[in-house]
Amino acid sequence: MARFAFLETLRAACLDLPGPDAAAAEGVSAREGRLTKPPGSLGRLEEITAWLAAWQGRNPPTLKRAEILVFAGNHGVTAQGVSAYPSEVTAQMVANFASGGAAINQLARESGASLRVIPLALDQPTTDFTKNAALDDEAFLEAVSTGYDQVSGDADVVILGEMGIGNTTVAAALSAALFGGGGRFAGKGTGVDEAGLARKRAVIEQGLARHADVLGDPLRAAAALGGRELAAILGACLAARHKRIPVLIDGIVSTAAVAPLKALRADALDHARVGHLSAEAGHRLLLQELDVKPLLDLGMRLGEGSGAAVALLVLRAALACHTGMATFEEAQVSDKST
Amino acid sequence: MARFAFLETLRAACLDLPGPDAAAAEGVSAREGRLTKPPGSLGRLEEITAWLAAWQGRNPPTLKRAEILVFAGNHGVTAQGVSAYPSEVTAQMVANFASGGAAINQLARESGASLRVIPLALDQPTTDFTKNAALDDEAFLEAVSTGYDQVSGDADVVILGEMGIGNTTVAAALSAALFGGGGRFAGKGTGVDEAGLARKRAVIEQGLARHADVLGDPLRAAAALGGRELAAILGACLAARHKRIPVLIDGIVSTAAVAPLKALRADALDHARVGHLSAEAGHRLLLQELDVKPLLDLGMRLGEGSGAAVALLVLRAALACHTGMATFEEAQVSDKST
Repeated sequence: MARFAFLETLRAACLDLPGPDAAAAEGVSAREGRLTKPPGSLGRLEEITAWLAAWQGRNPPTLKRAEILVFAGNHGVTAQGVSAYPSEVTAQMVANFASGGAAINQLARESGASLRVIPLALDQPTTDFTKNAALDDEAFLEAVSTGYDQVSGDADVVILGEMGIGNTTVAAALSAALFGGGGRFAGKGTGVDEAGLARKRAVIEQGLARHADVLGDPLRAAAALGGRELAAILGACLAARHKRIPVLIDGIVSTAAVAPLKALRADALDHARVGHLSAEAGHRLLLQELDVKPLLDLGMRLGEGSGAAVALLVLRAALACHTGMATFEEAQVSDKST
Repeated sequence: MARFAFLETLRAACLDLPGPDAAAAEGVSAREGRLTKPPGSLGRLEEITAWLAAWQGRNPPTLKRAEILVFAGNHGVTAQGVSAYPSEVTAQMVANFASGGAAINQLARESGASLRVIPLALDQPTTDFTKNAALDDEAFLEAVSTGYDQVSGDADVVILGEMGIGNTTVAAALSAALFGGGGRFAGKGTGVDEAGLARKRAVIEQGLARHADVLGDPLRAAAALGGRELAAILGACLAARHKRIPVLIDGIVSTAAVAPLKALRADALDHARVGHLSAEAGHRLLLQELDVKPLLDLGMRLGEGSGAAVALLVLRAALACHTGMATFEEAQVSDKST
C-alpha cells in the first residue's frame, strides 16, 4: 500500500512541517561577518550558506551527498496536439538518461551529484484532463508516495527535475488553477509554433472549466490536472522537508509541481530554492506568484533538473567560501575603519 | 623596457585585433542542433560553447587551463576618504591571497582554475586624481605591459580580477569619463555610508573637471583617472585577444578597466564575457553602456575576480553538455515531429 493511502493523510502531512534551525543559520551568519570580505559582499552566496545550515540543522552545512531525482511521466493531454514532440520521446529520453547521453547526465557529473531517474508508468499516460481527471485519487497518491520514498535521509541537498512530453501544458494548467489567469502560464514548451501555443491555451481553459469544482483544493487540483511526475515531485519536496534536507527546484514544471504545497501552507517551500528562471514564458509569472527569486537566469528551458544542477555549482561555491576563507583575525587584515 | 613604450604603440595594438573563428563557432552550433534536447533549450550554455570555440579557434573548445589573474594596486585618491577601509588592506589582502584565505582562493579551487596574484607597486600609490594625473604615461604603460605579459599563450580562458582599496571610485570616474554622467557610476564600494557616497561623487566630479582636456582619449583618460591594476587588466584583456583566449571579466572595476578598449574599437570586447552583475550600483549602468549581458546576478560585490570565478563553473557546465551529450541519432530519440 502506498505511504499516503488517503488524500486527507497527505493533506495532514503537508500541514505538519518542521521549521528551520535558527541557531545553525545564526552561527553561519556570525562566521560570515568575520570572514575577510566586506560584510554582505558575497551576496546570495552568504544567503545560501545560511539557508543550507537552517534546513540541514548543521553548522557548517555540508554538500557531500547531492541527489538529483528526475521523475518521468506521460500525459493523455498530448492527444490534443500540445507538444512539438511525440509521447514516445519520454521513454526514449529515459533510455538516454540510462545510457548517460542527456544534458542532466553531464551536469550531474560536473556538479558532483548522483542521478536517479524514476519512470512512472510511462505506458499508462494520465487521462486527457479536458475529458476527465488526469489522475484518480489512488493513482495520484501512489505517485506522490513514490516521490516521497525516493528521498534518502542522508542526502545533503535534493534536486528535483522531470521529463514528460506534454508537461508544460500540465504545469501551466495547474499554475492557473492555483493562481488564476487561464492560459497565461502557457509557453512554447519544447518548441510549438504560435498555432500550437494557442491550442495549449485553449486546452488549458477547457481543463480549468472541466474541473472548476475542485480547483479550490490544491491537492485535488494537482490530481485533476497534473501528471505522475509532478505528483512525485510534490511528494519528494514534502519528504525533504520532513527529513530536513534543502531542495533545489528546476524550471516551470518542477515549480508548478510543488506550488500546491505553498498553497496549503505559506512557509511550505522555505526549505527550497528555485535553481533558475526558465525561458519558458510562464515561469516568471509563477515565481512572481510564489514570491521567489531564482538563483540563475541563463535562458535554459530543458527540464530534467538541468537548471537546478547548474545552480548546485553555485551552492558549492558558496559553501567553499564559507568554510575555506580566513577570518579578519586569522589573516591579520584590518577590519572596516568606519 | 616595457612592452608598450609609447602610448601610440599601445593604441595601435588596441586597434589591430584578430576576429573570431566563424568556422569553429558554426561547427559547435551545428552539433548543438543534433544533441538530445529541443533546439536552443540550453540557452546561454549553447551561446557560451560557440563563443569559446570562436575565440579559441577550436571545435570543440577546451577548458583545461583556466587562469585567474588578480591585479592589486593602491590609489592616492583614498586620501579623500572615499573608502570604508584603509589603504593598508590592499597589501594585507595580497598576503591573504598568498596564504589561501580569501574568497578567490576557495573559488579558484572549486572552479579548477589556477590563481596568480600580481601586486603592482603597492608602496607607490597613484597620484590623487583630483590633484594631477593618477599615472604618468610611463607608469601607465608599464602597468599595461605587466598585465599584457601575465597572459600565458596556452590558457583556455583567462579570468581578470582586482584588489585595491579605493578602486570603485577610480572605476566610476573612468566610466564617467568614457560615457558621461559625472558621479552616476559611484556606489557604496566596500561599504561607505551616504555621506561617504556623496564624497565619492564629489571627488569624481573634481577629477573629471581636472582632466577634462584628455577625457576624449580613452587611453589618456585611463592614465589620468585610473590605477595600476585597472591598466594591467586592460593590458591582459588585450593580450588575451591577440593570443585568441576568451576572457571572463568580473565586476565594476574590471569592467571599467577594459571599457577603454571598446571605446577605441567597437568589437574589442567580443572575446570577453562579463561573469556577473555586481551589486555595486554603477555596474548595471556601465554594462548598459557597453551593451553587455552578464552571466550571473548573485548580488556579489567583492571583486578579486570572485563573480567571474563562479561564472567559470557555468562555462564548465556548458562545455560538459556540449561534449558529453548524445545526438538524436546516437540515442535513437525521435526528433521534433513538427
